[in-house]
Amino acid sequence: MSPLVTLLTDFGCRDSYVAEMKAVLLSTVPSVQLVDLTHEIPPGNVLAAQYILARTWARFPSGSVHLAVVDPGVGSRRRAIAVASADHYFVGPDNGLFTPVLDGATVVELTVPENAAPTFHGRDVFAPAAARLVLGEGVEKLGTPVADPIRLSPPQPVVEGERVRGAVIYVDRFGTLITNIGRELAAGKAAVEIRGIAVPLRRTFADVEPGELVAFVGSGGTVEIAVRDGAAAAKLDAGVGEAVLC
Amino acid sequence: MSPLVTLLTDFGCRDSYVAEMKAVLLSTVPSVQLVDLTHEIPPGNVLAAQYILARTWARFPSGSVHLAVVDPGVGSRRRAIAVASADHYFVGPDNGLFTPVLDGATVVELTVPENAAPTFHGRDVFAPAAARLVLGEGVEKLGTPVADPIRLSPPQPVVEGERVRGAVIYVDRFGTLITNIGRELAAGKAAVEIRGIAVPLRRTFADVEPGELVAFVGSGGTVEIAVRDGAAAAKLDAGVGEAVLC
Amino acid sequence: MSPLVTLLTDFGCRDSYVAEMKAVLLSTVPSVQLVDLTHEIPPGNVLAAQYILARTWARFPSGSVHLAVVDPGVGSRRRAIAVASADHYFVGPDNGLFTPVLDGATVVELTVPENAAPTFHGRDVFAPAAARLVLGEGVEKLGTPVADPIRLSPPQPVVEGERVRGAVIYVDRFGTLITNIGRELAAGKAAVEIRGIAVPLRRTFADVEPGELVAFVGSGGTVEIAVRDGAAAAKLDAGVGEAVLC
Repeated sequence: MSPLVTLLTDFGCRDSYVAEMKAVLLSTVPSVQLVDLTHEIPPGNVLAAQYILARTWARFPSGSVHLAVVDPGVGSRRRAIAVASADHYFVGPDNGLFTPVLDGATVVELTVPENAAPTFHGRDVFAPAAARLVLGEGVEKLGTPVADPIRLSPPQPVVEGERVRGAVIYVDRFGTLITNIGRELAAGKAAVEIRGIAVPLRRTFADVEPGELVAFVGSGGTVEIAVRDGAAAAKLDAGVGEAVLC
Repeated sequence: MSPLVTLLTDFGCRDSYVAEMKAVLLSTVPSVQLVDLTHEIPPGNVLAAQYILARTWARFPSGSVHLAVVDPGVGSRRRAIAVASADHYFVGPDNGLFTPVLDGATVVELTVPENAAPTFHGRDVFAPAAARLVLGEGVEKLGTPVADPIRLSPPQPVVEGERVRGAVIYVDRFGTLITNIGRELAAGKAAVEIRGIAVPLRRTFADVEPGELVAFVGSGGTVEIAVRDGAAAAKLDAGVGEAVLC
Repeated sequence: MSPLVTLLTDFGCRDSYVAEMKAVLLSTVPSVQLVDLTHEIPPGNVLAAQYILARTWARFPSGSVHLAVVDPGVGSRRRAIAVASADHYFVGPDNGLFTPVLDGATVVELTVPENAAPTFHGRDVFAPAAARLVLGEGVEKLGTPVADPIRLSPPQPVVEGERVRGAVIYVDRFGTLITNIGRELAAGKAAVEIRGIAVPLRRTFADVEPGELVAFVGSGGTVEIAVRDGAAAAKLDAGVGEAVLC
C-alpha cells in the first residue's frame, strides 16, 4: 500500500505554490501518492475548505495524511497543528478547518523552523510535517500537545415544531445549493422553501423537467436545491447563507 | 506495470466530486495510477466529452480503464455501462459518450446498488466498477449484456463534387476551431472558407504572420482554423456548429 | 525511487493536450510519476513559465525530468532541445524558457520525427524525449550539441546609489505583485514605493491590518507587494512591468 497524501488549498492551479509543496513531499518520500482534493477554495474561506474536507477524508484509505492549507493567518501567531483522528492524519493551520475531526483527536502544535517563509507555511512547515507522518512518525513526535484547538462550525439547522429552518452552506460548480438540512430532518417532507418559492423534494434531477427547480437529498447527505440541466444559484439569485425552510 | 485509470468528467476542479471518485478507486486499489483527462467539459456536453475521449484513450497503455462521467441523465432510467473494446475498458453512462469505441465491443449494464446516491453514480456506481476492472475482473462479470448501446455522433462532413462541407466540432483553450474535415478530405486544397472568409491551408501557425488566420491539419488529424498568437473563435465570432467549406 | 516528470505548459486543463502528453509518457514508462507544475501559463508567455520553473525545479529530487512546453514558435525553425543541468533534466523549445539553468549545462537539439504534428511537439517530440531520459538515456544520446541556446531574461533591478529600481515580474493568483528585488537588496529598507505610494516593508501579511498594503520578502526570495486578505494588483491597478523603488 502506497503512502497517500491529499492536498487541499486555496492556492489555485496557476502559480507554483502547489508544486512546491509536492516537491517537498516527493523529495522526502519518493513513492508517496499525491491526490488533489481541490486548490480552488475561495481565498481564505475556511468553512468552504472544511466542507470539502469533511466530505472526502473518510473515503480515503486508513493512514492517509490530509494536508489542508487555507490559512489567512499565515505568519501570525495562529498555531500550526497536526491532528490524528480515526486512523487518519491532518496537517494545517489551527483555524477551525479541522473541526469535524477534532472530537477524540490527538492534536499537537508544530514547531515553525526559523527559516520558514512567513508567508508560505504550506511548503516550509506543513508539507515537511506531512512527510514525517507518511514516513511513520507518530503525531506526538511532531510537536507539543494542544488541548484547545480552534473550532469553527457552519450554522446548524433549527427545528421549530414541524418546521426546520436551515441554510445554504455551499454552492457547487453546477450552481446547486447545498444546505445543512440532513436526510433525517427532511424525511417525509414534500417540499422545501427558499426565497419564498416552494421547491418539490424528490429523488433526483430526472424527476422534474429540464429547467425546473428540484430539491433532493444529495450525495453529501443533506438537502440540495438544483435546476435540472441548469443552475439554481443563478435562477434563485441565492448563495451561501440563504435561508431554507423544510 | 501499474494499473491505470483515466478520469473524464464535467465536475470541474473546485468541488469534492472528483476527489470522492478517486478515494473510492484508491481505497480498493491503493497502487492504482490516476490520470485526469479533463474535468472541465461544459456541464452535460456529451459530444465534447466524446471528442476528448476519442483523442486520448488509444494513446494510453493496453488494459487502461477509462472512467468517463458526463451524465445529465444521472438517476433517470438511462443505463450505466461498462465497455471492453480494443483491449481498453470504459465505464460511464449509456448516453453515447462511448460511441467511437462501440464497434465490436462487449457492453454490459451495471447494477446500480440500492444505496447509490441518485445524483452521483460517478462515485457510487462507476468508480466501483472501474476498480473491479482494474483488479482484473472481466467486463462480463460486471453486469448483463447490452445489445443496443446508445450511439451519438457529431455531424459528418459532406462531399459535394469538388467541395467538402464540414463544421466546427470543438473549440480549444486557445480559441482554435477544430473541424470534422479529415486530413484526406483536405488533401490538395489551398484554403478553407468560414463565415465567407478564405483561410489559407498551410502546415502550421508559423507559416503566417502573427495575428493572421491560418488553417492546417491539426494534431487530432482534422482541419483546424487558428490565429497565430491569437484566438480564431473570437476573431471570427465562430463556435461549434459553424459551417466550414474546403 | 520512482522516475519523476514534471509538466509545465500553457495548454490549460480543459482540452486533451496535457493528457495526450501524459499518455505518451505512461505508455513508455508505466511507473513514471507525473507532477503538474501548472498548465495555466498565459498562452505564449515564456517569461511567466520561466519564473514558475525557476521557483520549483530544484526542489524536486535529483534526476527529475522537467517537461516545459510554452512554445509560441512550434513548427517554426526554433530548435527543440534537451538540457542536463545540476543533475536535473529539461525538455522543451529553445526559446529562453530554460535560461536560469543554462550556465554549465549540456544542451542538445532534438530530432523532430517526420510524422510529428507541426502544432504539437509537446506530444510528438518533447514527451518522447522526456521518456527516454527517464529510462536513463544520456542527454547527449538524444541529439546534437547546441552551443548557443537562446537566452531570455526578465528585467534586472538597478542600484542607483541608495536606491534600487526594480519591477513587478509576476502577479500571482491572490493578486500579489512579485518583484525582481532580492532579499539582500531590500535589507535595511523600511518601505518600497509603487505608483507613488510608500508601502511598509514588513515580515508578512499579519503585520498589517486587513485591507492594508504590505511589502515583504516573499517565499520566492524577492520583495512582494500584497494586501492582507485582498489583492494588491487590483488595489494598485498594477501588473507585470510596473516600477518598484526600494
